[in-house]
Parts: sequence; structure tokens; C-alpha cells
Amino acid sequence: MHIPQRILLGPGPSDVPARVLSALAAPTLGHLDPAYLKIMDHTRQMLREVFRTKNELTMAISGTGSAGMEACVANLIEPGDEMIVCVNGVFGGRMRDVAQRCGATVHSVEVEWGQSVDPQKVADALKQHPKTKVVGVVHAETSTGALSNVEEISKVVHAAGALILVDAVTSLGGMDLRIDDWKIDACYSGTQKCLSCPPGLSPVTISADAVKKMDQRKTKCQSWYLDFSMLRQYWGEDRVYHHTAPVNMTYGLHAALAIVLEEGLDNRIARHVKNHQALRAGLEAIGLKFVPKNSLTTLNLVSVPDGANDAQIRKALLERFGIEIGAGLGPFKGKAWRIGLMGYASSQRNVLMILAALETLLGKSGALAPAEKVYASK
Amino acid sequence: MHIPQRILLGPGPSDVPARVLSALAAPTLGHLDPAYLKIMDHTRQMLREVFRTKNELTMAISGTGSAGMEACVANLIEPGDEMIVCVNGVFGGRMRDVAQRCGATVHSVEVEWGQSVDPQKVADALKQHPKTKVVGVVHAETSTGALSNVEEISKVVHAAGALILVDAVTSLGGMDLRIDDWKIDACYSGTQKCLSCPPGLSPVTISADAVKKMDQRKTKCQSWYLDFSMLRQYWGEDRVYHHTAPVNMTYGLHAALAIVLEEGLDNRIARHVKNHQALRAGLEAIGLKFVPKNSLTTLNLVSVPDGANDAQIRKALLERFGIEIGAGLGPFKGKAWRIGLMGYASSQRNVLMILAALETLLGKSGALAPAEKVYASK
Repeated sequence: MHIPQRILLGPGPSDVPARVLSALAAPTLGHLDPAYLKIMDHTRQMLREVFRTKNELTMAISGTGSAGMEACVANLIEPGDEMIVCVNGVFGGRMRDVAQRCGATVHSVEVEWGQSVDPQKVADALKQHPKTKVVGVVHAETSTGALSNVEEISKVVHAAGALILVDAVTSLGGMDLRIDDWKIDACYSGTQKCLSCPPGLSPVTISADAVKKMDQRKTKCQSWYLDFSMLRQYWGEDRVYHHTAPVNMTYGLHAALAIVLEEGLDNRIARHVKNHQALRAGLEAIGLKFVPKNSLTTLNLVSVPDGANDAQIRKALLERFGIEIGAGLGPFKGKAWRIGLMGYASSQRNVLMILAALETLLGKSGALAPAEKVYASK
Repeated sequence: MHIPQRILLGPGPSDVPARVLSALAAPTLGHLDPAYLKIMDHTRQMLREVFRTKNELTMAISGTGSAGMEACVANLIEPGDEMIVCVNGVFGGRMRDVAQRCGATVHSVEVEWGQSVDPQKVADALKQHPKTKVVGVVHAETSTGALSNVEEISKVVHAAGALILVDAVTSLGGMDLRIDDWKIDACYSGTQKCLSCPPGLSPVTISADAVKKMDQRKTKCQSWYLDFSMLRQYWGEDRVYHHTAPVNMTYGLHAALAIVLEEGLDNRIARHVKNHQALRAGLEAIGLKFVPKNSLTTLNLVSVPDGANDAQIRKALLERFGIEIGAGLGPFKGKAWRIGLMGYASSQRNVLMILAALETLLGKSGALAPAEKVYASK
């Protein structure tokens, strides 16, 4: 097994700290061992802190972020239910597909890729479809780097009496996200982005209102594996065996969450802001433009400059410098790069390194000084 | 995070070798990194060897064994399809539940818990339900320790023109299982049993016939996350991004499969037989009876002897000796123990240790000599 040295500045996974990698390698415990159950309890308590919620139903799904998406949709939706999905990139599109497979009648709020979801458009859709049960929206679109104001969208959704489901895969642990303050009913994320744990688990949190709706279901959740009514009994005090938990991945998540809370959420969010600003200053100085008006601080979608070959540059970054960045998707295929600064990988060192590498490969200069100026400022 | 020293002799997870734990802790690579794709390719090639198949569609699902079960059923079944499920324990029951959630019309072949599935009963059910598309059966019932003859059942199923789906969670890598020779159309397993990798992935393999049936589906697979038509494009040469693979778990599986193949499948199976025989000789010498007529060699369901308190003994094993064994389930709750000897944990040392511990706790003696006699024999 050959594992070359990399710096992961793509759309995720991000670099994983040694402490998290070490935790993965601790001896496997049984999934019902009292010592493991304590680790689960502590993990869910830390998840609540990172989600900024008191939701009882907060846990890690035994699959990646997309499993968390499917879990939330499959538990909230029964065949025939109406759902509005806001689509401004790959992951909104994926949520629509998942909802259709769950038997929902889906109404799409279509938004140009790279743009944020306008709360007014959601309000209009809710007026047009007053029976809507759930509105799904992506907080941080990993495919385009666009941030949407889910706090405002949540107000609109609750005014119409619906539930709001939020994709926070690329924001949890890196950008401001407040489940309780913003009254978000269901939210899922992934471990491999701003939490800097390897991929494989999906943190989810569900409000009491949403749990009540789930309890009123007339049909079983179509997924046995993702059925919250059973997962609750394992993560809760009953400890009823459901499936064999991914024990070592839980160790990794436990360590990753401890690191997040030791740094402090506010400090961590501020660090992501600072490094994003420095990267932006450097990239713009050598002529790369940011696509989204309202960019994430965790993931940067920048245009491939004229005359540069997208694939060649990414290949050279990987092979000559060991740096991974992401390709553009959909309308941005071949036209934009996705440069992630997530979790552990959001550092001054990495910002200066990717700027230096891009200067070298693009034959430009002048990126470093503007970035360093940002670091020199308060 | 406190992780006490354990020996895992329950129904899984089993003990994980240090080499596999170390592999988990290797630095995370991107899920589209050429170096990671090589590891995937090698992993699927080793999976084929362990499954004894040439099936192109062989891969690890990004979830535990139950996700593999759901993946197979959801891809094989469309709403309204007829499926026969053989139920002789928890996992047959689970498969029935999953099939119903996928919209199948399910016919059960009910078998007393602890007994094997009789091929004749499957033939009778197929005669009664000639439109059956898929027959599901558990090779090694983890809840009861009963082995079923899936080779014979497969003949019966194919004679009726149906497909056979096999649960090999507790047999793959520990007991004889031959996907191609036995003409098994779909099979799933888990990593945490006889492969001695932590839980979190589910190896699956699908025959060309079953793939053809899936290609003729009129509806999309109800699960986006588990949709083989998309997973194939990521695991195959196209490398189309689906979800972010659980990179570090794949490292672990890669190492675990390498260990299996270094030992050799036949040697490994023989080792499980020998240790099972020794354990049986010892347990029977102190009056514990095996429940199944046709016992697995990987998992032993034995009656709790008269006068012994099930929960107290298991607690004492865990707290005083650091040994985990499993409780009985269903009709065996409080009445039987499940003692696993799986993968790395199937060793002479562990057999003698659990016998010695049980002698101590039950106040019996005489278990060790019969076990040692088995080891002394050829």
C-alpha cells in the first residue's frame, strides 16, 4: 500500500491531524461494551456543542455525508409528501434525487450555480406549494463554494409551517452554524471536511418538532439501515442493538471533536475567515477571480485563468508539490478550481504554499505579499 | 477516551491485528487520488479472491454489513417484485423487513431458530410462488450459530429460475464460501467478523446475471447512497465521483485482506475448524450444550448451564478477564451464549483462555484436557 505525502486542499477530505489518525488505530471494542458506549455518549455530547444545539437526537450516521442526507430525507418524508428542494449546485441536485427516490413530490427552487439561495424565492415557492412538509437547502455548496443564508430561509420556512433540512457538510466546524438559534429542524454533515476526521461518518441532528413529525409517520422509513426510530434506541439510553457501529471511526470522530472544542468554535471560525481572506488576496493579485458573490471561507471556487490548462495544473500540483485541489463541476468543469481550506488544513502555511505553487505553475508573481498583508493585519 | 484491554470472543467485532490498526492510521488521501484508486483496485481484486469469484461487480459498500444487506435487496428488488426470505434467526428476519421496505411482496420460509434452512422447504416455497425473483438466505446465522447449505439451496433456486442472495457476514474469510462454484448471484458480508478488520464496510459481490437483471430495472433503486448503477462507475474504470469513499477504512480492509490471503483461505478455514472443535470438546466436557445441529465454526451458540446466571457470567468475563462474549437473542435470550472464534481471534490461546475463565466462573473443571487433545490430534 503506497501512500504518497499529500496536502489536501480540495473539496474534502481535508488533512487529518496525527491525533485523530492515532485514535483510529486504538484497539477495537465491542459495539455494546460499556467503555464504547461511554465514548458514544461523549461523542454525541461534543456533536451537540459543535452543532450548537440541545437536540436529544444528535448522532453520527454510519456512512458518509450522503448517507446522512439520505437518512434525513428518508425519515422526514413519506411517499406522497411534498418537499421543496433548493438547487444551486451538485448537492441540492442530489437532495432532489434522494427525495424523489423516497417518494416525495418535489418542487425545485432553481438557482444559478455559484449563486446563493434567495430567501424570497423560497417564500414564493412555499406560497405556491402550501402543503410542503419539508424545505431542503444546502448551507455551504461544496460544488460551487456558495454560502446561503439558512437563518433567513429558516424564518420563511417556519412562517409557512414547514420543516427545514440543512446540508452543512462543508460548514460544520468551520463556519457559523447555529442549529437552535436558527431553528433548523434537521441537519447533516460529514466528518471529512472542517472536522478533519477521515470520511465515513455523518453527524446529524434533529429537532424535537421534527422528531414529533417522524413519530406520526404512517409508513416505516424506507431504509432499515438509516431508520432513526431504531437508531435512536441504540444511541439513546435503551442501547438496543441495531447494527454494529463503526467503532474505530467513532474513535476518530471523538478525537476530532475534542480538537474542535479545545480550539473553540469561535476561534476556529475566525481562523477560517482569516485564511480565506489571505488566500483571496493572493489569488486575486495574480488574476484569479472568485465565482460566488457570497463565498464560503472553507472552500474557494476560482476561475481557471485564461491560457492555463485546468487538468495539467491540477496534475502538476499533485505530482510536483503533493497538493490536491478540486476540479470544477457542472458548468464549472474545466473552468474553475475548488481550493479548500478546511479544518486542520486551513493554515497560513498552506495558504502561502498553494499561492507559491500556483505562481510557479502559472508563471505569475505577486501573490504572496497581499496574503501576508492580511496576516499582518489585526 | 478510555479503551480497556479486551479479547473479543462475541458475535463480532472480532480482534483486529496490529497491522490492520496501523493501516487505519495512515494519512488520508483524496478519494480520487490516483494512489487511492490503486488501493481500491487492489482491494477489490483481493475481495474477489476471498469471495472465490471472478465477478466484475465486487466492491466494499460504505457502511456496515446491514448496509450491504440493504444495498443488495434494494438493487435487486423493485416495488411489487416477489421475494422469498428464509428466516431462521435475527438476520433472516432483518432481510425480510428490508425487503418489505423495498416494496417486495415477501414470502417467508420460517425455520425454527437454531436450525438450518432445509433446501426442500425452499423448493416447496418456490413451487408455491413461481414468480419469485429473488431468494434470500443467511449462510451463517450470527444470532443462532446455525449453518445453512447455500450450495444446495442455490441449485433449487436456479432450477426455478430465480436469483439467490446470500448473507455471508459471519462466514466470509472463516468458512467455506464459493460464490462462483455455488452460483451465488449476490452476496454481502461485513469486515468485522472473520476478516478481522474494524466494522464499517460491507464487501459485496454480484453475478453477471444479477447485474443484467438490475440493468433491466424500470425504476431507480430507492436508495441513492447504495445504488449499484452509480457505485459501479466509481469502482469501475470510469471513476465517476459518487460519494466520498471512507478512505482510511479502505486502508484497513486492504491490510486485512492481505493477511487473509497470506495465510491462505484453505489454511484459514482449517484453523477455524480446529479451534471450533477444541472449544466444543472443552465446553461439552463441562456440560455446555451446543444448540444448532449444524454449527458454524466461527460462532458457537451454547446453552447457559443450569444454575448459572447469564448476565452475571458475561459481566464477570468482561470485568475480571477482559473477555467479551455475546448474549443470546430471541428465544435464546438469557438461555444461551454466543462465543465467537473469528478471524484473528480464532486461536488456541483464546480457546484455552475462555475455557479456563468459564471453569473458574462456573466452578467446574475438566474443560482444558479435551480441548488440548484436539490440538494434539492431527
